[in-house]
Amino acid sequence: TGLASQTLVRAMSSSSGPTSPYTTLSISRPAEAITHVELHRPEKRNAMNKAFWSEMVHCFNEITVDPECRVVVFSAAGKIFTAGIDLMDMAGDILQPEGDDTARISWNLRKTVTSYQETFSVIEKCPKPVVVAVHGACVGGGIDLITACDIRLCTQDAWFQVKEVDIGLAADVGTLQRLPKVIGSRSLVNELALTARKMYADEAKSSGLVSRVFANKEDMMAGALEMAGEIADRSPVAVQGTKINLIYARDHSVADGLNYVATWNMSMLQTQDVMKSVQAAMEKKSPKAVTFSKL
Amino acid sequence: TGLASQTLVRAMSSSSGPTSPYTTLSISRPAEAITHVELHRPEKRNAMNKAFWSEMVHCFNEITVDPECRVVVFSAAGKIFTAGIDLMDMAGDILQPEGDDTARISWNLRKTVTSYQETFSVIEKCPKPVVVAVHGACVGGGIDLITACDIRLCTQDAWFQVKEVDIGLAADVGTLQRLPKVIGSRSLVNELALTARKMYADEAKSSGLVSRVFANKEDMMAGALEMAGEIADRSPVAVQGTKINLIYARDHSVADGLNYVATWNMSMLQTQDVMKSVQAAMEKKSPKAVTFSKL
Amino acid sequence: TGLASQTLVRAMSSSSGPTSPYTTLSISRPAEAITHVELHRPEKRNAMNKAFWSEMVHCFNEITVDPECRVVVFSAAGKIFTAGIDLMDMAGDILQPEGDDTARISWNLRKTVTSYQETFSVIEKCPKPVVVAVHGACVGGGIDLITACDIRLCTQDAWFQVKEVDIGLAADVGTLQRLPKVIGSRSLVNELALTARKMYADEAKSSGLVSRVFANKEDMMAGALEMAGEIADRSPVAVQGTKINLIYARDHSVADGLNYVATWNMSMLQTQDVMKSVQAAMEKKSPKAVTFSKL
Amino acid sequence: TGLASQTLVRAMSSSSGPTSPYTTLSISRPAEAITHVELHRPEKRNAMNKAFWSEMVHCFNEITVDPECRVVVFSAAGKIFTAGIDLMDMAGDILQPEGDDTARISWNLRKTVTSYQETFSVIEKCPKPVVVAVHGACVGGGIDLITACDIRLCTQDAWFQVKEVDIGLAADVGTLQRLPKVIGSRSLVNELALTARKMYADEAKSSGLVSRVFANKEDMMAGALEMAGEIADRSPVAVQGTKINLIYARDHSVADGLNYVATWNMSMLQTQDVMKSVQAAMEKKSPKAVTFSKL
Amino acid sequence: TGLASQTLVRAMSSSSGPTSPYTTLSISRPAEAITHVELHRPEKRNAMNKAFWSEMVHCFNEITVDPECRVVVFSAAGKIFTAGIDLMDMAGDILQPEGDDTARISWNLRKTVTSYQETFSVIEKCPKPVVVAVHGACVGGGIDLITACDIRLCTQDAWFQVKEVDIGLAADVGTLQRLPKVIGSRSLVNELALTARKMYADEAKSSGLVSRVFANKEDMMAGALEMAGEIADRSPVAVQGTKINLIYARDHSVADGLNYVATWNMSMLQTQDVMKSVQAAMEKKSPKAVTFSKL
Amino acid sequence: TGLASQTLVRAMSSSSGPTSPYTTLSISRPAEAITHVELHRPEKRNAMNKAFWSEMVHCFNEITVDPECRVVVFSAAGKIFTAGIDLMDMAGDILQPEGDDTARISWNLRKTVTSYQETFSVIEKCPKPVVVAVHGACVGGGIDLITACDIRLCTQDAWFQVKEVDIGLAADVGTLQRLPKVIGSRSLVNELALTARKMYADEAKSSGLVSRVFANKEDMMAGALEMAGEIADRSPVAVQGTKINLIYARDHSVADGLNYVATWNMSMLQTQDVMKSVQAAMEKKSPKAVTFSKL
Repeated sequence: TGLASQTLVRAMSSSSGPTSPYTTLSISRPAEAITHVELHRPEKRNAMNKAFWSEMVHCFNEITVDPECRVVVFSAAGKIFTAGIDLMDMAGDILQPEGDDTARISWNLRKTVTSYQETFSVIEKCPKPVVVAVHGACVGGGIDLITACDIRLCTQDAWFQVKEVDIGLAADVGTLQRLPKVIGSRSLVNELALTARKMYADEAKSSGLVSRVFANKEDMMAGALEMAGEIADRSPVAVQGTKINLIYARDHSVADGLNYVATWNMSMLQTQDVMKSVQAAMEKKSPKAVTFSKL
Repeated sequence: TGLASQTLVRAMSSSSGPTSPYTTLSISRPAEAITHVELHRPEKRNAMNKAFWSEMVHCFNEITVDPECRVVVFSAAGKIFTAGIDLMDMAGDILQPEGDDTARISWNLRKTVTSYQETFSVIEKCPKPVVVAVHGACVGGGIDLITACDIRLCTQDAWFQVKEVDIGLAADVGTLQRLPKVIGSRSLVNELALTARKMYADEAKSSGLVSRVFANKEDMMAGALEMAGEIADRSPVAVQGTKINLIYARDHSVADGLNYVATWNMSMLQTQDVMKSVQAAMEKKSPKAVTFSKL
Repeated sequence: TGLASQTLVRAMSSSSGPTSPYTTLSISRPAEAITHVELHRPEKRNAMNKAFWSEMVHCFNEITVDPECRVVVFSAAGKIFTAGIDLMDMAGDILQPEGDDTARISWNLRKTVTSYQETFSVIEKCPKPVVVAVHGACVGGGIDLITACDIRLCTQDAWFQVKEVDIGLAADVGTLQRLPKVIGSRSLVNELALTARKMYADEAKSSGLVSRVFANKEDMMAGALEMAGEIADRSPVAVQGTKINLIYARDHSVADGLNYVATWNMSMLQTQDVMKSVQAAMEKKSPKAVTFSKL
Repeated sequence: TGLASQTLVRAMSSSSGPTSPYTTLSISRPAEAITHVELHRPEKRNAMNKAFWSEMVHCFNEITVDPECRVVVFSAAGKIFTAGIDLMDMAGDILQPEGDDTARISWNLRKTVTSYQETFSVIEKCPKPVVVAVHGACVGGGIDLITACDIRLCTQDAWFQVKEVDIGLAADVGTLQRLPKVIGSRSLVNELALTARKMYADEAKSSGLVSRVFANKEDMMAGALEMAGEIADRSPVAVQGTKINLIYARDHSVADGLNYVATWNMSMLQTQDVMKSVQAAMEKKSPKAVTFSKL
Repeated sequence: TGLASQTLVRAMSSSSGPTSPYTTLSISRPAEAITHVELHRPEKRNAMNKAFWSEMVHCFNEITVDPECRVVVFSAAGKIFTAGIDLMDMAGDILQPEGDDTARISWNLRKTVTSYQETFSVIEKCPKPVVVAVHGACVGGGIDLITACDIRLCTQDAWFQVKEVDIGLAADVGTLQRLPKVIGSRSLVNELALTARKMYADEAKSSGLVSRVFANKEDMMAGALEMAGEIADRSPVAVQGTKINLIYARDHSVADGLNYVATWNMSMLQTQDVMKSVQAAMEKKSPKAVTFSKL
Repeated sequence: TGLASQTLVRAMSSSSGPTSPYTTLSISRPAEAITHVELHRPEKRNAMNKAFWSEMVHCFNEITVDPECRVVVFSAAGKIFTAGIDLMDMAGDILQPEGDDTARISWNLRKTVTSYQETFSVIEKCPKPVVVAVHGACVGGGIDLITACDIRLCTQDAWFQVKEVDIGLAADVGTLQRLPKVIGSRSLVNELALTARKMYADEAKSSGLVSRVFANKEDMMAGALEMAGEIADRSPVAVQGTKINLIYARDHSVADGLNYVATWNMSMLQTQDVMKSVQAAMEKKSPKAVTFSKL
């Protein structure tokens, strides 16, 4: 994390605005094989408006098929990570849904919720690992977002809040499904979800929500980049197969997971990457020294 | 947690005995929308006798349909939380079950165990969150009980013991099923269940079994009441939907959980509570300021 | 952990070599009902060669049916726990699998991986609890091994590394399936599996991978023996039923797990061990004072 | 099926009315160990009114614990089996459910539907086999009822109609869940459920909905009694274990089902009934010649 | 099925070619609320080329959100239903997939197969029932297609062939997953899939693959239209809820299915359609007489 | 089925006795790539004795790894297929199991049952299709056996009987788990399992238990051989992948099954067999004309 990387990080943070065609996301390539996605509505405290919900799907579908990208860093511009859903912009969909009777209104609401769920599920369906770096407040929809990411980092001043219960609803775009599988204490999960209390960085670390806490955003971004670099240096066959199998394992029995990975690896073990990696290991070289084909 | 609440807590703790028709449970309403259930056989160290096993079912079935109750605090009277099963009272059912041959004895034992399981499963089936406050010893059946609750608190002098292996049996009313989904360290779960060693408050906190530790019972009861108050202040549509979906998610894949909550919320989002809560949020009012209809 | 036990431990550690017919495992009985399995290729840093993969299956199948054994302690000889897979010895199977075309090579690879998976799954299928004691490095296949054990202990100098991604593959003999169900922080699991970074004893303890850390190997072996003794003293009907039901519960819903344990216990509660244990408990005797029949 | 049985059947059919405390069910014991439950609102075409929905639960809970009953025959009095739900009586619950807003109305509706589901699920939870004998029309709720039974018989003039789609709703008390697992042709299931067309006895037989068709009700009742007699003559340990395991198998994988039945039979094989039955078999006696203890 | 409908059917069959922007599908509206999708590459025996695989997804996504469509009839132009996959057109994707090594080729093949699976899964995800009408040969991919439809009809001259084993592969776009859940005889499923033998209309009917057989295509199309009309006349809330719940039930236990439909119907029962339908039923009117809002 | 094949069949039937080291099975190779396994204890009506239960496991494990075998025909010598379990030989294991108390007896019984289950599960785990040909009586354990096979054929004089209920037990080696997934009518499954009535060839055919009925054993064996030949002529990569995926699909949701087959085929599609088969198909040659490598 020397000078060069600090410059890099500063460059990342000074992004001048969303990347067209997006209006809420800024996309860059801070280093080889690393895509940086920045939530970029700082003037609105990165609140998630209608555009955001669909741009995320588009963005991660692109990343999924981009052979130049092997790992993603996700962070947010401005003072806080996100204030959550943009109630002003979304109110119509949720508070005044269309429909001739209750059943038809319900039908439309379900369609809306299902499509919002997809906004974060694309992160999981993308086989490239996503490292999320949180600073300041991460509220409501922010929790749904980060629990769908693979690795969570935060700054010392970060705080987290499952907010949905405060606006009269059960969280329905991922928090209730993923949070209990992300941290180990069910009592804590329930407390957070039922009381909407804030959780600060230290408890986020001790509870396992994040795996590292950094003194400030600059350090965190450097740390995130370094970690992403570690991942990007390794075989994409190994890395993406690992993500896919970790997610499969979460939702199946151990026996099913073992069967699946055996079937997965019957072809994936035939990659040149194993040979190249083994050779590097025997020559005491780091994976960074190896050039892997694109995937 | 000022003077008023301390008085309240003292009142709760000085309950003069079980509430008819119960002989092991004392029921009260320490604050609006909060039901306090106290295990009350202090002279028997709150050992779980036959009456207890059936009274719990009756009590939580009542709570489930009581529109005045939105959240439950569960604690125990006397010096300890519970010594576990009352071997004297239960010995007949378990040690001398009826039946003409092994198969028929087995049939009856299975009926007994299944009915005892229901004693704690009712806590889970009740959509109202249950905050359990543990002081002193929590042994054997006590672990089965608290792992079926939603939020666990304890005093500094509390200790926990999965005791069943000491009396020659695999725990069969919930501990082995729920404990591994309640705390994150499987090594610890196995150690506790296989060696019956005691776990004290600090480890209970660091392992995630409890989410808060209090200096003494009075503080804990005040803390439990305050937390219950936070929950009771929020929309019951949001709170109870959250509990139901958290439990559903535990037993299903993430995809199944997302499908379920979308189907759940297609009607629940149509509640006035969302509108009222959003309005309060925009006006920077707390949820406490909003009056929600009963559920 | 007096002098006697220290002598015992020293005896365990000074084992003169593998126990015939094994070439990689040393088997002993340090105390009644306790089997000690020691990974014993110290000159090769306990790397897992072909012989190891099949000897483990043979060894644990023997242990499963050995009525004299009630609990297993697994440790390793020499300076470190294990360097993981023995690439030199295994390279052929993995790097040059046989087959006339890609499909046939894949078919053979799947057969190989499936058989390697069995090497660790036998630990889980064996109903006797396995306490694993780790010192020094535990790399690659070592993680697959220890996550299949029931209770994990380590020395202060131990470190852990999910290494597979470094040699170009997704771990396929258990780590990706079991690690997320063994520790509570999914962010940490992903970080370890995707970056291959080392984790030291303190983080292993705080994350819940191990449940105890000891100053050195001697202390750890004494502690492991003592813990194994606690388990061995208890009813084997209770202990082995507990292990079987804990593993069943991991892979099923709570409702399914409750149904299963009720069906399990309808016969197991008819053991004399319950009567004997209850009587001992009433007489304030320890389980050690009771003699249980073999299972 | 000689004279005696015909008399018996006639007696069964001439039941003078519901059996107190029931108002919609007539209960009798036409032969040893056989309980006959007759849906008895002939003047209302056996339409399912509010009383029926709760009486069924009460009735089958009684049967479950009645040691004198080993098998149930279910049929209906009057001209047809059932016209389905009694819209007049039920309209309030369904058309004008209570609740202050959509969410609260939904909450109450879900409670109602869940309780109606229980009306037929009790048939499945009762371990005693239920033979259902259908004559004339079996409409709407009738299909929900018979698909929860174990063996289906009908008369030549019987017809079946999944009616719910005609009154604007997706069937929600069992038909959509059980019918596809009851008959083999998914195209037929879909056609019946989506078009509400009638299916007559011949197609019911060829599709596997019923396993036997009789010329008239008298013959059918004699056939049902004879079949029930065959079941009642056999070991209740064997019969009820068979029902429980068949239902378990429906909802689990084959591997899970095998694990469950092995755990079930580890005690059930210790019944005297096996010894008695084997002895009878070796002496070429029929099971009828054996006296089994009650279960 | 009078003159008018025959004219209609003739009109349907004389479609002059694919409907822009499609090149393999012809879309029409033969009657109110009914969409007719015709596979239209008659000169190529309706072989499934690359265009077809993506046009199906586009087409059914359109149908899903088209409020004017309540039910779909799917049939094929020309002499036969389909010859299956267009090997000429598809050979590249399957026989010469891109990739630098085996793992990367495998990765690309999996992406291709997964996207082809979606071609038929969209039929299932579309909540509107799909009636498929088969004439002449239905080979290979044709079986994958029709097993994803809801109701299957065929002409007397139709025949069916699971062809994949003949070209060296295990069917991977739906047949092996859905066929066993579509027909009741597993022996027959296995025989068809393992020997690639033809099955003719009579066996297709008796085995339950199709629910009706017609003398010729004209009669079948009239029959399909009539059946579609029956479905289109009913409440779309009821019809589409029925399809969604039938598919959910296939993939879950009965208990899970009941829970899901109760949660589904807590809102859907609040539709005006129930009131309108009940009123019509009481007035002995057919559902056709009722006008339902769009969904 | 000309003269040559009849001679072949006669040769198959005149096998002079079990093939060493087996005492209950006769193994032969009637045609290239086809293994014929004949149950051969005709003087004991092919009753299943202790030797049989273990020889089956050994035999099918051999077949699994025998590259010369691509398909299996299973039939029985003598007058009937099998009388089921050999009560005389097995009585000890089941009626007088060892153990110091009920729990230990249960433990041993479970071990026994689990090992007997494996006897038939090996048929399913063997990836080579098994065609079973039944003549005369197929009783008790015979049903467990044939439901684990892939394709069932029988003679006109065959009959089937789920016998276990007659000897006082719930069938525990496969019938209750597999039969409901093998035939479409659940009412029939229940009737057969609960009443132990015989089912004759015609009903076996119409219910889908068997897919073909032959006039006599000679014809059936010719038919079985011919069908086996059809399978043996096809690509073993295609055939065995088909069996594995059909069995996987039975125990998983459609979505899971599709995911699995896509992962399976990402390597298997790279076989030369596809190229060879496609070429043959284009040249209008039969698969028989193609030579496939061994698997």
